[in-house]
Amino acid sequence: MTMQQTDPRHLSIAYIGGGSRGWAWRLMTDLALEASLAGTVKLYDIDREAAGVNETIGNRLSGRPDVPGKWRYQAVNSLAEALSGADFVVISILPGTFREMRSDVHAPEACGIYQSVGDTTGPGGLIRALRTIPMYVTIAAAIRAHAPDAWVINYTNPMSICTRILYEIFPGVKAFGCCHEVFHTQLLLAQALKECGGVAGAPREAIKINVLGINHFTWLDRASYQTIDLFPLYRQFVEKYFETGYEEEAGRWERDFFASGQRVKFDLFRRYGLIAAAGDRHLAEFLPPWYLKDPETVREWKFSLTPVDYRIDNAKELIAKSRRLASGAEELPLDQTGEEGVRQMKALLGLGDLITNVNLPNRGQLSGVPLGAVVETNALFSRDRVQPVVAGQLPPEIQSLIIRHVYNQEATLRAGLTRDKELAFRAFMNDPLVTVGPADGRKLFDRMLANTAEYLPGWEL
Amino acid sequence: MTMQQTDPRHLSIAYIGGGSRGWAWRLMTDLALEASLAGTVKLYDIDREAAGVNETIGNRLSGRPDVPGKWRYQAVNSLAEALSGADFVVISILPGTFREMRSDVHAPEACGIYQSVGDTTGPGGLIRALRTIPMYVTIAAAIRAHAPDAWVINYTNPMSICTRILYEIFPGVKAFGCCHEVFHTQLLLAQALKECGGVAGAPREAIKINVLGINHFTWLDRASYQTIDLFPLYRQFVEKYFETGYEEEAGRWERDFFASGQRVKFDLFRRYGLIAAAGDRHLAEFLPPWYLKDPETVREWKFSLTPVDYRIDNAKELIAKSRRLASGAEELPLDQTGEEGVRQMKALLGLGDLITNVNLPNRGQLSGVPLGAVVETNALFSRDRVQPVVAGQLPPEIQSLIIRHVYNQEATLRAGLTRDKELAFRAFMNDPLVTVGPADGRKLFDRMLANTAEYLPGWEL
Amino acid sequence: MTMQQTDPRHLSIAYIGGGSRGWAWRLMTDLALEASLAGTVKLYDIDREAAGVNETIGNRLSGRPDVPGKWRYQAVNSLAEALSGADFVVISILPGTFREMRSDVHAPEACGIYQSVGDTTGPGGLIRALRTIPMYVTIAAAIRAHAPDAWVINYTNPMSICTRILYEIFPGVKAFGCCHEVFHTQLLLAQALKECGGVAGAPREAIKINVLGINHFTWLDRASYQTIDLFPLYRQFVEKYFETGYEEEAGRWERDFFASGQRVKFDLFRRYGLIAAAGDRHLAEFLPPWYLKDPETVREWKFSLTPVDYRIDNAKELIAKSRRLASGAEELPLDQTGEEGVRQMKALLGLGDLITNVNLPNRGQLSGVPLGAVVETNALFSRDRVQPVVAGQLPPEIQSLIIRHVYNQEATLRAGLTRDKELAFRAFMNDPLVTVGPADGRKLFDRMLANTAEYLPGWEL
Amino acid sequence: MTMQQTDPRHLSIAYIGGGSRGWAWRLMTDLALEASLAGTVKLYDIDREAAGVNETIGNRLSGRPDVPGKWRYQAVNSLAEALSGADFVVISILPGTFREMRSDVHAPEACGIYQSVGDTTGPGGLIRALRTIPMYVTIAAAIRAHAPDAWVINYTNPMSICTRILYEIFPGVKAFGCCHEVFHTQLLLAQALKECGGVAGAPREAIKINVLGINHFTWLDRASYQTIDLFPLYRQFVEKYFETGYEEEAGRWERDFFASGQRVKFDLFRRYGLIAAAGDRHLAEFLPPWYLKDPETVREWKFSLTPVDYRIDNAKELIAKSRRLASGAEELPLDQTGEEGVRQMKALLGLGDLITNVNLPNRGQLSGVPLGAVVETNALFSRDRVQPVVAGQLPPEIQSLIIRHVYNQEATLRAGLTRDKELAFRAFMNDPLVTVGPADGRKLFDRMLANTAEYLPGWEL
Repeated sequence: MTMQQTDPRHLSIAYIGGGSRGWAWRLMTDLALEASLAGTVKLYDIDREAAGVNETIGNRLSGRPDVPGKWRYQAVNSLAEALSGADFVVISILPGTFREMRSDVHAPEACGIYQSVGDTTGPGGLIRALRTIPMYVTIAAAIRAHAPDAWVINYTNPMSICTRILYEIFPGVKAFGCCHEVFHTQLLLAQALKECGGVAGAPREAIKINVLGINHFTWLDRASYQTIDLFPLYRQFVEKYFETGYEEEAGRWERDFFASGQRVKFDLFRRYGLIAAAGDRHLAEFLPPWYLKDPETVREWKFSLTPVDYRIDNAKELIAKSRRLASGAEELPLDQTGEEGVRQMKALLGLGDLITNVNLPNRGQLSGVPLGAVVETNALFSRDRVQPVVAGQLPPEIQSLIIRHVYNQEATLRAGLTRDKELAFRAFMNDPLVTVGPADGRKLFDRMLANTAEYLPGWEL
Repeated sequence: MTMQQTDPRHLSIAYIGGGSRGWAWRLMTDLALEASLAGTVKLYDIDREAAGVNETIGNRLSGRPDVPGKWRYQAVNSLAEALSGADFVVISILPGTFREMRSDVHAPEACGIYQSVGDTTGPGGLIRALRTIPMYVTIAAAIRAHAPDAWVINYTNPMSICTRILYEIFPGVKAFGCCHEVFHTQLLLAQALKECGGVAGAPREAIKINVLGINHFTWLDRASYQTIDLFPLYRQFVEKYFETGYEEEAGRWERDFFASGQRVKFDLFRRYGLIAAAGDRHLAEFLPPWYLKDPETVREWKFSLTPVDYRIDNAKELIAKSRRLASGAEELPLDQTGEEGVRQMKALLGLGDLITNVNLPNRGQLSGVPLGAVVETNALFSRDRVQPVVAGQLPPEIQSLIIRHVYNQEATLRAGLTRDKELAFRAFMNDPLVTVGPADGRKLFDRMLANTAEYLPGWEL
Repeated sequence: MTMQQTDPRHLSIAYIGGGSRGWAWRLMTDLALEASLAGTVKLYDIDREAAGVNETIGNRLSGRPDVPGKWRYQAVNSLAEALSGADFVVISILPGTFREMRSDVHAPEACGIYQSVGDTTGPGGLIRALRTIPMYVTIAAAIRAHAPDAWVINYTNPMSICTRILYEIFPGVKAFGCCHEVFHTQLLLAQALKECGGVAGAPREAIKINVLGINHFTWLDRASYQTIDLFPLYRQFVEKYFETGYEEEAGRWERDFFASGQRVKFDLFRRYGLIAAAGDRHLAEFLPPWYLKDPETVREWKFSLTPVDYRIDNAKELIAKSRRLASGAEELPLDQTGEEGVRQMKALLGLGDLITNVNLPNRGQLSGVPLGAVVETNALFSRDRVQPVVAGQLPPEIQSLIIRHVYNQEATLRAGLTRDKELAFRAFMNDPLVTVGPADGRKLFDRMLANTAEYLPGWEL
Repeated sequence: MTMQQTDPRHLSIAYIGGGSRGWAWRLMTDLALEASLAGTVKLYDIDREAAGVNETIGNRLSGRPDVPGKWRYQAVNSLAEALSGADFVVISILPGTFREMRSDVHAPEACGIYQSVGDTTGPGGLIRALRTIPMYVTIAAAIRAHAPDAWVINYTNPMSICTRILYEIFPGVKAFGCCHEVFHTQLLLAQALKECGGVAGAPREAIKINVLGINHFTWLDRASYQTIDLFPLYRQFVEKYFETGYEEEAGRWERDFFASGQRVKFDLFRRYGLIAAAGDRHLAEFLPPWYLKDPETVREWKFSLTPVDYRIDNAKELIAKSRRLASGAEELPLDQTGEEGVRQMKALLGLGDLITNVNLPNRGQLSGVPLGAVVETNALFSRDRVQPVVAGQLPPEIQSLIIRHVYNQEATLRAGLTRDKELAFRAFMNDPLVTVGPADGRKLFDRMLANTAEYLPGWEL
């Protein structure tokens, strides 16, 4: 359906997962920096207290004199309340707790299966997906009931499956999924342009790319800056840094679980000729354990297995920080976050077209992938429209790598929607990281599923 | 294949039909106004003299001190010479002479079949297509041989078939077809915005639209200006002017064969709810003779049947003008022409992205139309890339109107390529304007084909 | 879902339209002649009395000693009762009465629009479709509720739309549409084989054909008998009889409204090179009024406009006949009817494979037609399966003729389902037989719609 | 193009690989048993002597009084000679020698990669494909030149790629690929019918199945015998024999490298619910090394790794046997071989329709697989036509397993056609059996490619 005439100064945004201490603060920051928009952000979270703290943080931010974008933040008690009257819906939730995430990421290690993130694919990503599906079924139904005309931005992983469910439950939904992994690759290309092309200072948005693939396993077959083809420059850059890895800050990948030396990306470029456009930690998980064979191999490729203990410690710090932000003991820095949510909202309101990469059901933009599967390509954002750009087709040897995930995601979705444990196990065994045989695989699967049982309502386990 | 690194200040453009007194002068003007580009334009025409005159006109223009865009114009003697080294190829030819065009347009009148243009569809458009096909086969083969990496811009009608042949003969061609009919509809929407929305001065490019269809029978299902949905305003505008017709300058349609009161467009909007986005003279020809039943009906709908005699007179004036321009007795005015060729070239060189509507083989941008058929939608122009935007699908009742032409164009193309007179006749009888029965149809077809026989080499007539 | 193990001697058939005096008697006859099947036929009809008479006729037939196929016939009072426990569902209903049919067929004549049947396409077919749609919505919902695993055979016209609705309302339905028009063309080919090939006595089933198209506008691109290609023979046959027409019984077309001289079929073969495979009365209605221009033209082509008065008289005779059959004053002759319903049932039960032409949603069997549209091709019938055979693609000039109907049927279906009068009118004007302009068309449409208003529940007329 | 009127008693068959001691003798036997056909078989082989011996064997067979099918066998010296005038072309060649096959099958064992056959997929199948591609390019070009209207039956592995090349090089080819693996599964179903359903003696052809997949990795989603659904019976059968395996002759799998206990097939049925329809030795190779982890695992699953030494010994025996057959010391037994080549020829001549499974480019018969990829489904054979039956779609978890091979075969084909070593390596690493990392994979690939270098003309190795 068509968006009603919307006043950019009286918007209503529903934030599902509104107690978030990452994406929510980023959105607050970008809204604060944008003078052309104003309105209300309704924060909904099953952690009501966290939403309340964010309400305080947000309103405090709006009260700052150096903030041009004035918003009212309001923690609400129900999905319905958040969604009623919403022009935009933002979803960034953590499905389950760190207890479940610990099982997702670390349980497979007993079988020699290592995951660097464990939230998108691999055994951990699959179990996480099963846990997420009933939550998204609820959210999709609520959007259909309370905000059918709103634009919905999803940030939650597993991105493809989350976006796919929204359309499965409510085919009329106006939803897309956003991820910043490709942006980081643009920054890397800007660095190659500087080092190998002698052109410094190219802003990320000026690095023009053609994006093809699925979330966290995206590829570029074209990249340019103004009149310059970036492929030859990237090739030089890769050759220069292939052995050592490339880092802005040397050795950071050893201190920061989220950093890497880009060696996986470089290796994929040398082997396939196209630019893999996600972080090494994500890319490695979509492939056979070429880069994730064991912790030593991971170190050789200069990236990290992100331990859940680290995430737990980090979360504690963030809670402490949230208290400081709420009390005014600390202030959110007013720097552009590099996220595109607010730019996308502006474009959807009619305040200027935008081309950026997003996750959407395939309607023809990516040849060789079934229609309806969620794919990541560029899209044109315009008033009340998001239209994918026809991206072409990946070469067959990369199709072979990607399409098995596309169908496996579909199998996972079906398993989750129908609570079919056997189907879920079939999908589990199809994953390239699951290198154990069916018997050992079964034990691992049963254990991991049991660990997440609390979040699988109605399943017979 | 990929464009080599191209210097925007040392370009080579091949102009096929370089003696043109319309499109060529427009291109010269736009190039003259563009400071960022420079190079050589090679003019090739079977009318060598006309190309020579245009060489003089172009170089004279480049010599003017008020002209920022400096180009060297050079009439050449062969396609090969024009194409060698070309970065861009522009094609705007007149297939045949006014003698053949007179038959295309007026011969059917004896059977009560009236055509307002006769160059795209209808009996005249079909015969013109047959005449054009061998010419484009030659051109496509020459591009493959001499300029396989060049970008090719086609302006010749029938647009869909001309563009389609280029890809049929040389699948690797980097060609698209350009037409300004949609631009005029954007201007009409700007007028509606002004009259019914109170917002004056919106530039054409700021009228954002979603384009779906085939050339000269294109539709818009979305139109907006900034935050404003233009559909409600256009509805008011249509109701206001439905009876009287709308003209910037009252009564102009009675003096100017190319003008109209837009009543066909208004009627289609009232009946279908979408905005038909081409001139009334073109739109009417794709439909059963609802608007072209007889000259009286045409007058009622406030548009004109363009007589070829008028075109002949006009051509004489243009020849005289070309002499004045060559001699310096008259000067080309330095106003933007509103065409997009130069803007497209800039985008293809990497000098800024552009979204505009073009004709391209369907690769997924228009659902419900066979892949490979040439369709008109928006596309993203970027460095060495033209990527269609996924436009969606027309409603079935409009699909029913369009798709018959899509398949009939394919039949016409096959007939032309294989010199199959019977197949050409089948296509002829399928045209919605051909309201006579098979027996009378046959006589008309044979007569029209005979009139164009000179341009059908190798046909058995 | 999968058919349960079914005993061919204890079947249950639901007959919707069970008071029918044509299709029902044919089915009874074929069941009576088939020794391998037995069970119950439940007759449901809104004309309860007619169903009751058929109950008597059927049971009387089963009681005859010369009848090998023993069935119990039972008139029932509701759709639910008929459908509960059904293994097969047969649908042959008359949507509305002769009063509505009279309007469908004859009202357009005032505008110079002539229809030879008026039940499939043309203005009459469209109005009939609108009337049928709510009935089929009810039937489809009842099948979903009461007999989701049953196989459903549709005989009602408009065939494509009726079959399409069943799938639209109940996507899991196991339905197909049957029509004998193609069979008649096989008989004509057998005649050509005899006259021009010297081979007599070829049974219809031995004439092997490839079927492509939509119901009543089907085409053959291959036809053979054993090792013999029938195309050259048919070509001779057509040339022999083109002028005079071909009839088994000379001049019959002048006495029998359902007969023809096959001249339309012959003309289409000469013009297109493929064999049109439906009766001339049906074929003519899908085309511009080449053969239906006026009653004189129809006579020239040696077929008839079937007046509804004739159908009314005929119906009276059939009622009288039904009474005689019920009382035993007359007996149903025990000759194979040439219909395939019982053979199809046998194949679906597992009693031998069958290849025959049926109407099914396109799942890939007919290239160039949208997936989901109901098309007619050969299919393989096997136990609990009907699988279309990949038929290929029609040439573009025939695609152009067919596909406009495909989309127009979709528009008509949408109009019927959403009770959208304006959309119905758009579809009406798209029909090739509607040669009047929009203004006159509107009057005709409004009048015809008003005449059928009783059968358009919930419409705003 | 259309087959000319062909006399079944004067046929010409070209046998490419006519020195074959397996397929050729089978064809001779089946031709000998078929009274309705006669003509000439031209035997072409690069081993001219072997073709000569087969000429003698064939003509001796035709001379036997108990043989109804009389054929003249003639060894010829060139492809052109064999193909000129051919109505049918049979291709069964061995690409390379046992030396290359030894490398294909056994070289990967040094890396812990075990293959049970090594001719279809896995590292060995890929290298074999590369070797086969130039041979099939030659054959396809010769067919286009000398026998463009002939029907071409391929028996060579890798089946999918061989069939694909024929269409790639000569799009008008009338070719299909035949394989008996599915037939063996039908026999297994007949056994299940007997043991669990109490119905003995069902002939293979009466086991009706729906076939979906790619050669050697095909699946059945429907199986029936007359009115009986075979799935429940097969389920019982699988449960009965899952632990022990099923063999007609106990322990045969330990003596016969081509036999198995069907345990892979049973396991796949338990896990996926569909019937995998190829020999266990083939099925295991398409999957991650669930069944091929090491020789012990293979033994557990009761099938064998077929050593090339065994093939070499066997070939020696066959050469000795061929001499005995040629001299008359031994006679070919006159038993139906169970192959379908002759039945297919009869159907193509018009001597009766046939439904059987074959390998063909996807034209819509298998949803979810790209058009053009060679798939295995049922097809209808009729006079001069092979039309696939629309088979439906595999569930996503099986699609995920199959489609990666489909794209990898395409990559292999591209690599072979363009002699692109790097692309071949990418495909190599994509194979599920290649469980080593990129570095070790590279060494293995280089070694295997070097071992087959003689058969890679024009490659830079």
